[in-house]
Amino acid sequence: MDVADRGLTSPEVDFSAWYNELVLRAGLVDRAPVKGTMVIRPYGYRIWELLQDELDRRIKETGHQNAYFPLLIPQSHLHREAEHVAGFSPELAVVTHAGGSELAEPLVVRPTSETVVGEMMAKWVSSYRDLPLLLNQWANVVRWEMRPRMLLRTSEFLWQEGHTAHADAESAMRETRLALDIYTDIARDFAAIPVIPGEKTPGERFAGARRTFTIEAMMRDRRALQAGTSHYMGENFARAFDIRYTTESGELGHAHTTSWGMSTRMLGGMIMAHGDEKGLVLPPKLAPYQVVIIPIGRGTRFDELVSVAGALLERLRAVGIRARVDERSHRSPGYKFHEWELRGVPLRLELGPRDLAEGSATLVRRLGKGKESLRLAALPEVLPGLLAEFQESLLVRATEFRDSHTRPVSDWSAFQEAVASGWAAALHCGDTGCAERIKAATAATPRCIPLDAPAESGDCIYCGQHADFGKRVLFARAY
Amino acid sequence: MDVADRGLTSPEVDFSAWYNELVLRAGLVDRAPVKGTMVIRPYGYRIWELLQDELDRRIKETGHQNAYFPLLIPQSHLHREAEHVAGFSPELAVVTHAGGSELAEPLVVRPTSETVVGEMMAKWVSSYRDLPLLLNQWANVVRWEMRPRMLLRTSEFLWQEGHTAHADAESAMRETRLALDIYTDIARDFAAIPVIPGEKTPGERFAGARRTFTIEAMMRDRRALQAGTSHYMGENFARAFDIRYTTESGELGHAHTTSWGMSTRMLGGMIMAHGDEKGLVLPPKLAPYQVVIIPIGRGTRFDELVSVAGALLERLRAVGIRARVDERSHRSPGYKFHEWELRGVPLRLELGPRDLAEGSATLVRRLGKGKESLRLAALPEVLPGLLAEFQESLLVRATEFRDSHTRPVSDWSAFQEAVASGWAAALHCGDTGCAERIKAATAATPRCIPLDAPAESGDCIYCGQHADFGKRVLFARAY
Repeated sequence: MDVADRGLTSPEVDFSAWYNELVLRAGLVDRAPVKGTMVIRPYGYRIWELLQDELDRRIKETGHQNAYFPLLIPQSHLHREAEHVAGFSPELAVVTHAGGSELAEPLVVRPTSETVVGEMMAKWVSSYRDLPLLLNQWANVVRWEMRPRMLLRTSEFLWQEGHTAHADAESAMRETRLALDIYTDIARDFAAIPVIPGEKTPGERFAGARRTFTIEAMMRDRRALQAGTSHYMGENFARAFDIRYTTESGELGHAHTTSWGMSTRMLGGMIMAHGDEKGLVLPPKLAPYQVVIIPIGRGTRFDELVSVAGALLERLRAVGIRARVDERSHRSPGYKFHEWELRGVPLRLELGPRDLAEGSATLVRRLGKGKESLRLAALPEVLPGLLAEFQESLLVRATEFRDSHTRPVSDWSAFQEAVASGWAAALHCGDTGCAERIKAATAATPRCIPLDAPAESGDCIYCGQHADFGKRVLFARAY
Repeated sequence: MDVADRGLTSPEVDFSAWYNELVLRAGLVDRAPVKGTMVIRPYGYRIWELLQDELDRRIKETGHQNAYFPLLIPQSHLHREAEHVAGFSPELAVVTHAGGSELAEPLVVRPTSETVVGEMMAKWVSSYRDLPLLLNQWANVVRWEMRPRMLLRTSEFLWQEGHTAHADAESAMRETRLALDIYTDIARDFAAIPVIPGEKTPGERFAGARRTFTIEAMMRDRRALQAGTSHYMGENFARAFDIRYTTESGELGHAHTTSWGMSTRMLGGMIMAHGDEKGLVLPPKLAPYQVVIIPIGRGTRFDELVSVAGALLERLRAVGIRARVDERSHRSPGYKFHEWELRGVPLRLELGPRDLAEGSATLVRRLGKGKESLRLAALPEVLPGLLAEFQESLLVRATEFRDSHTRPVSDWSAFQEAVASGWAAALHCGDTGCAERIKAATAATPRCIPLDAPAESGDCIYCGQHADFGKRVLFARAY
């Protein structure tokens, strides 16, 4: 167990160091032997499982079926869609030997699965009756990272990737937006992150996509994190892989495809959206333990308290609360308080001899001051409400934080000031070269064109050319 | 949809061809671009998910936590345990290039994860308080196959791999047997396969294990399938990776480790243990659809029946039955009957105008003759019992089949006869060379020393040397 023996670097002093220390010391991940890869430890993996459960439920509920496509893809397949291969080539891991000999054709470890899914869809789709074809897979992917960062950019990560084929553009666009809605809801309702759903500018599109949508999240250092994306491919992949079907009237048409993914990166987002100088702050809906019970006492007194805590644990579990008793006798209460704060457990219940005598427990919230005495008998009834309150308070806090650090700006100096300390909403010409010059000057990039931004016209904040999107674009420094 | 337009090769005529046709035509899997790899299609993947749900539940219930270890392992790590690398080297896929350049050290795509888990456990374990360390992961692994077979031997497959570390041999052996018990129960209670749990002879042990346990299943062609294994590693991996801990009395000791796995191969086992000339026969507990409802009629009549079927579907779902209505209007009832028989749905409900007039539906079981009329109103109450009966009947049938094709034999000619058409239980010296000679003569290999076989002593069935295990060994031709 890596615990808070030493203090954690303050996020105010060095956000990046704080993050790197925290993910290791909270027991979320560990460094793996191959540089850039990670081990997801049980505490981190449990958060991923809770996110998966909900995401998988919504994916199935909206008519998608899970499948599994192979890890290894012939290198030549990637070349069939020109933009796609150009985008992914620098990041590929390549298998050249297998079964003791050199392969005739090198195999790519999937960086994403559009090409192999496209190949299979071409086999499976022949009539309009086969459409829409709504698939999803849970898988690992490999994209070689030169500057890896635990959970945010690792050479291997876990994700789900939805892949669908449709008869026409309308149906495919509805699907692209449906996936984005699911991501938006999950981020807000589970991770307590008030993400901004929007469309990517042309320069930020997925390699091979006609349109890319994203949810953008604000971290506590006010940088943006792309936390999920959804792509409308048009007929690009259908043409590259020959996904054709006979329409109801007997003509031959190309399918329109989509893909969309959310990954373990979301865990990094949760850490950076809610964490503080004491460590993680986990939203109850995704917390492995929502409540930790800490018996406080010595000797036989301690054993007695552990047994009362155990009985309480069962009653909390019976109402669906994920709780845990810290019954280690070789650690002090203070040590345990720090450790569970570091690990972000929303509610702590202290159970000492005086509490026991009064038939109560002392509640301490991970955020907020002070202690509160609660009747033991009432806890199974009271705690679900307190957890819901905690969940809601995280979302409110994150929303206020986001809004107070996002500014509409109309001139270049205000833009520079805004992106130095937050997000800027500005009109933009949409030219990729102009976006690159903005980045060179400020390190900020266009994050998205928010879906719900009001219509607005005018000139580009940087170059003064006519603004292209009919609304403001969000700019920020990003992960 | 690949359906039974043509008849399926009879399993009596050519079991192997029957299997290869069936897995494709039932929509379980498809061939992927890289030879030896497969796509698991939604119908097959759903079976895997149902198996996963139950297996994951039991793994967690027994105190294990899920984690995720990386796909890529430095080649040198595999070399630290000599037997392990010798066993896996011929099957490795090797990444030599990544991120656009040649790697300083080649990386192996994990064929199993003992080495990387060992490396991490060495970091995580320091005191007896850290033990037992009970981990599991759900993952893909790659073992290059020269003679691939869908679901049974593919170059990539999905599995769970448990990895645990313990303070002493006793605790590790209890764990090894616990995992085997879980596999035995799941195979029997979910896949309806009455597997024989037993220990592998030395020549059949996992590379690097001190003891290997297995569950062996009899297929309809009477060959054996190893359907799950559990290994006690002793201190082998702890010494290779330096997994040491301080005991309560302050000494330094090596941990004892275990590993155990069950894979998508189990799906192949279910197909071959229950399938028949019409196609799959799925045990209800793992069937994506337990009941299929087929409206039979034309025009507006058909629409009316589809609507009644839809209402019935909701009522069945409400009692937890996985049901589906086949509402395709361009397919005949006969076509649908054949297709759902091919796909192994346990119960079919036909809903025609006459049924409707009588307020009933016609039940047809996937196995067994004849039709039965059941009151529509009673179906939610009646069907769960019928599904349980169906599940039980598969297990009874498979048990009878296994027992009637397993013979204790005491002389070589009876042995040869027995393994030509089933399994033989025979005394065996335990010598690996002798087992190889038996294989050369009969194609049969020692499958396991059944845990519950009675004590028996005597001489080896083949070489006449003293039999080594104190009980009979099961021999069979195997997948």
